[in-house]
Amino acid sequence: MEFSSKLLENAVYEMSQLPGIGKRTALRLVLHLLKQPEERTQNLSNALLKLKQDVNYCKNCNNISDTEICEICANPKRDKSLVCVVEDVRDVMAIENTSQYQGLYHVLGGKISPMEGVGPQDLNIASLVKRVESGDVKELIFALSSTMEGDTTNFYIYKQLERFNVVTSTIARGISVGDELEYADEVTLGRSILNRVPFENSIKAG
Amino acid sequence: MEFSSKLLENAVYEMSQLPGIGKRTALRLVLHLLKQPEERTQNLSNALLKLKQDVNYCKNCNNISDTEICEICANPKRDKSLVCVVEDVRDVMAIENTSQYQGLYHVLGGKISPMEGVGPQDLNIASLVKRVESGDVKELIFALSSTMEGDTTNFYIYKQLERFNVVTSTIARGISVGDELEYADEVTLGRSILNRVPFENSIKAG
Repeated sequence: MEFSSKLLENAVYEMSQLPGIGKRTALRLVLHLLKQPEERTQNLSNALLKLKQDVNYCKNCNNISDTEICEICANPKRDKSLVCVVEDVRDVMAIENTSQYQGLYHVLGGKISPMEGVGPQDLNIASLVKRVESGDVKELIFALSSTMEGDTTNFYIYKQLERFNVVTSTIARGISVGDELEYADEVTLGRSILNRVPFENSIKAG
Repeated sequence: MEFSSKLLENAVYEMSQLPGIGKRTALRLVLHLLKQPEERTQNLSNALLKLKQDVNYCKNCNNISDTEICEICANPKRDKSLVCVVEDVRDVMAIENTSQYQGLYHVLGGKISPMEGVGPQDLNIASLVKRVESGDVKELIFALSSTMEGDTTNFYIYKQLERFNVVTSTIARGISVGDELEYADEVTLGRSILNRVPFENSIKAG
């Protein structure tokens, strides 16, 4: 791609560094901003810089929060003996959206992935061990994605916590509610038969 | 979407104002920037702001350019009697990529679109009329997209230039090179038969 202006080329280059944004999309976005009032660009820049500079992570669960302890951890109605281990902030938002969970969270900040150079020391695992050590936590729910990396991370944490008296569980895997069996992948369908649940449970879950 | 932090919410909101970027994608992009060194965010912000503040449009053709007259207009090898009328910078880049065109351009900055509140006065049409008036231009090539808005814009400009002695043409529409006839849309295929060209021409174009 040949640009008629270095300024334009530079802006497109920086924009195309974002994941999933190619050069063409970046050019479209940059030209859009050029057509808008300068305020728009300033607001975007300021919002991004301010977030990056002032971002704060909850001292307890590492969720992004404007206060030292996030709203979820500070909520006295929440069950402090139950901790759900997730990869990042998006997973907290997804689970909160269900309104089905009343425990706390622990945000790891990623998964163990040797391919991407992410080891256990890069994640918030030590702080999780400390939380369990303090004795408040009775059950840990692993809610990482069910990939090789997710399973590895689950197992690593499981091993670290073996010496403590804590129950560990993973979220249920199976056929999505409303899905047709014929379109489900074999691994999921196979496991959903092996891990079948008493019919009474499904009546309760509604 | 419920955010755990106002700063995060604000950054996601600003990002999601870009065309084709929804809230989910915006969140993914913002969280990606959060994981990167602060430099990344600063480079992006600076590049966007610098472009917006210092952007310069060629005095002759309105293409984005770092110099007063863009490289294409300043090039003495270019045919100054031939002007291709395009919608925006991306079209200039697309035509330049073909290496088939040796004339100059005129960037309108959009199409006449009453639905979006874009009238002739919002586009660089007056400056095009001036260029033609000055007498250097012998032929205008309309290369706007072939939509209702594009056709309207072509016709409006055509009417404005009737009193001058200038040849107007549009780029050829037809079946793409390499395309199968059976998959072509009917309008394009129909027009390509009506506007058939002598076989000798297609041999020359190679």
